[in-house]
Amino acid sequence: MQMKQREFKIDKETNFSEWYNTIIYGAELADIRYNVKGFVVFRPWAVAAMKRMYAAYEKELEKTGHGPAWFPALIPEKNLMKEAKHVEGFVPEVFWVEKAGETKLEERLAMRPTSETAMYPMYALWIQSASDLPLKIYHSSQVWRHETKATKPFIRSREFYWIEAHDVYATREESEAQVREDMQIARKVITQKLGVPFVFFQRPQWDKFPGALHTFAADTLMPDGKVIQQPSTHLLGQNFSKAFDISFTDEKGNKQFGWQTCYGPAISRIYASVISMHGDSKGLVLPPIIAPIQIVIVPIARKGSGDPLVKKALQIKEALEQKDWRVHIDSRDKTPGFKFNDWEMKGVPMRIEMGERELEKLSVTLALRDSGEKRTVLEKDLEKRVMQEAEAMTKRMLEKAEKWFTARLNTASTEKDLVKRLDKGGMVRIPFCTLEMNGMPCAESLKKKHAIDVRGTRYDQKEKPSGKETCVMCGKTAAVYVFAGRQY
Amino acid sequence: MQMKQREFKIDKETNFSEWYNTIIYGAELADIRYNVKGFVVFRPWAVAAMKRMYAAYEKELEKTGHGPAWFPALIPEKNLMKEAKHVEGFVPEVFWVEKAGETKLEERLAMRPTSETAMYPMYALWIQSASDLPLKIYHSSQVWRHETKATKPFIRSREFYWIEAHDVYATREESEAQVREDMQIARKVITQKLGVPFVFFQRPQWDKFPGALHTFAADTLMPDGKVIQQPSTHLLGQNFSKAFDISFTDEKGNKQFGWQTCYGPAISRIYASVISMHGDSKGLVLPPIIAPIQIVIVPIARKGSGDPLVKKALQIKEALEQKDWRVHIDSRDKTPGFKFNDWEMKGVPMRIEMGERELEKLSVTLALRDSGEKRTVLEKDLEKRVMQEAEAMTKRMLEKAEKWFTARLNTASTEKDLVKRLDKGGMVRIPFCTLEMNGMPCAESLKKKHAIDVRGTRYDQKEKPSGKETCVMCGKTAAVYVFAGRQY
Repeated sequence: MQMKQREFKIDKETNFSEWYNTIIYGAELADIRYNVKGFVVFRPWAVAAMKRMYAAYEKELEKTGHGPAWFPALIPEKNLMKEAKHVEGFVPEVFWVEKAGETKLEERLAMRPTSETAMYPMYALWIQSASDLPLKIYHSSQVWRHETKATKPFIRSREFYWIEAHDVYATREESEAQVREDMQIARKVITQKLGVPFVFFQRPQWDKFPGALHTFAADTLMPDGKVIQQPSTHLLGQNFSKAFDISFTDEKGNKQFGWQTCYGPAISRIYASVISMHGDSKGLVLPPIIAPIQIVIVPIARKGSGDPLVKKALQIKEALEQKDWRVHIDSRDKTPGFKFNDWEMKGVPMRIEMGERELEKLSVTLALRDSGEKRTVLEKDLEKRVMQEAEAMTKRMLEKAEKWFTARLNTASTEKDLVKRLDKGGMVRIPFCTLEMNGMPCAESLKKKHAIDVRGTRYDQKEKPSGKETCVMCGKTAAVYVFAGRQY
Repeated sequence: MQMKQREFKIDKETNFSEWYNTIIYGAELADIRYNVKGFVVFRPWAVAAMKRMYAAYEKELEKTGHGPAWFPALIPEKNLMKEAKHVEGFVPEVFWVEKAGETKLEERLAMRPTSETAMYPMYALWIQSASDLPLKIYHSSQVWRHETKATKPFIRSREFYWIEAHDVYATREESEAQVREDMQIARKVITQKLGVPFVFFQRPQWDKFPGALHTFAADTLMPDGKVIQQPSTHLLGQNFSKAFDISFTDEKGNKQFGWQTCYGPAISRIYASVISMHGDSKGLVLPPIIAPIQIVIVPIARKGSGDPLVKKALQIKEALEQKDWRVHIDSRDKTPGFKFNDWEMKGVPMRIEMGERELEKLSVTLALRDSGEKRTVLEKDLEKRVMQEAEAMTKRMLEKAEKWFTARLNTASTEKDLVKRLDKGGMVRIPFCTLEMNGMPCAESLKKKHAIDVRGTRYDQKEKPSGKETCVMCGKTAAVYVFAGRQY
């Protein structure tokens, strides 16, 4: 890769697209030169972090009783065709397999665009009685959709990396509780561990998952103020259980259909938000929990005087590794300045600088990636300090992000005011006629006139208009407050 | 699933196929009722173990300098066509994508049967100078091949789960050292951690990876004495680097092509060997390192007297979880006998039984899955003992497997003797004319007459025939000793 940039000063808010591309190549995260349109190659520095994101998410799913399973990548056309809305939603963008070697297959197979129709025929076999419920299964996988919008690594491509969790309950109430649990898991992983704040919205009826009763989706913001969707969870009701005969016999001997939910955190897209929320004009800033290298040690030696330093660096590395820190010594034949820039671009959370003078004082310099601060730390305190600083950094990154995000949630009560506010980015609360299907013309008009999307009602704040307020588009009495934004 | 069998007494050596199927369904490992031929659904109990196998393998790959990457599932036909032997080897079994939605694609895309032709065009972009070498990357993924042989879960299906590691070096010597490293990693993970012994063979020239100079593959045995291939590693030489222009400029300014290796441990197939090597007539026996539950606690209460027992069980669970053990309390309303059978079928390494009498004595009974032994352990010693017993069990399982395996490696010097010995299973060493292409007729004749496969020369023992011995088939002076067996 010859595109490495050791230093760059691009402001991510005013020039997000250039900033993002510079990071993608500078930190060697992805490569879009693969010769199938819409398909991206994800490189080790990004994958090593995303694997940790998978692990963090899977841990929470397992804690809440989900088991891992692997379902096939290919789905028979007849399975896909079973639920009418689902067909409408996904068939237009499915990659079809019709041939293997020289053999024409008996039936067309779809590369999974999502796995409901692969999983639910099996669920129908596995679920017979109430004692088989709840069934909670997740699958970490890729899905393929022939997207027509432009490819942007991690944000949108025709192949993306996600987790799907599909749960079945005996009652609607339990399935509703699962939707809330899904939201809590998102908060725990994405906000608390990765420092990305978001708001969960109940999507309008015209913008829900194909086949669901209701869709709840998290939205966050990119540095340019545009909205990007994060995980969504869907109350499927009994639409799929009836189509696939996922049923059980209750105590009275009656046949009952299951109540289902599905949940889809897209790991690659969450990573896009992590990059974008925390990065700065020097490069990536990675939360310590997912950084492939958490601490880089840079020995600063005068010519020919390096030996005791290297020895000391190794000692420190080993001591920190004993405590499960991921540590790397940069012993390349380059200047310290070059190395600092390089690891700052890559977003390594902590850097230990050690020169001869420090060696004499039995101390090192600890530099923090997010704030740029430097601390002098005695060697004997290092293990403890590293832990404290990593915790403080995680907290600081979230606080900074929360502050930035919250400042971009505004309100407006007229179309004109909405547009004016959204021209500065963010999400704006407006009075709106309804989330039911007859609100769709107002949403379409907003989209067409101003490229503004209605994101739905806030799930965590149930406030309702007073009855005096009117929809910003049609002027009818507003039944709901919705948030609107320009979508990524 | 209504196929659970709580107890069964099928001998795995004399009736392997029935035993294997009983385990697959009894322990809920996989389901072959998915409605695409050759595609298998892998269920949580198996996946939770295979995820740990992935982690163990990836850890060793990362320790030896490999970084993780994700390459696309779809490969353009033109990439596949670049290396002649590779085309021959894989194109006949490729799943082709020609359409997305209603759009006919400009070019056919193959679902990856293996990723050389997806990865190497990118390697050509990334490698420019000697300082970009070595390049060591692994990808944990699925591959798809339209196999014509019968599907057997974990052993063979049209979709399988594996890791591919693809490395590039400046010199042949370094690439040969990588092949040896690949073998050591296999030994470390599959034998030392999972207790499955194997032998690495250099495959005959007619049985190598399409496009490679040499193929080295591990073979182990199934309970019925048939051979099953485990990981293989391939010295690719410069065949692919020339086809894909993976080159660098050396110090003298000359263009040099890279020396490549690729390595493919199939996780699902290794799991098949783990099941088969260790299982017994009560069910699975899982090595502690990969068991989804390592310790199951079964409180044995008289009616209405369970409370103090349940409390104690929880205390023990929490104490063991503090030490990172995976523990489950079976509090179902079932008899202890039912529970014992159930967890024995699932292969949980250790069971803690606790009744009231034991509670009074501040002790529990610790039952070991592999040997069936029971130990009385004082509560205060439990954490220490569990660790000791798990280590001893891992060691015992390997020793038992090694003994069984080694006893099935034999020698013969004539065709007749070979057949007689192989009718009892195992692998048999024979004098053979040559591993070069002109030995192929002898191998084909062995296969046709006796369904026996030539597996190659042992990599770890370089012994050569004396000059007096003759090939068991053609009678010419034998240049090599090869091992032969009946392949799974």
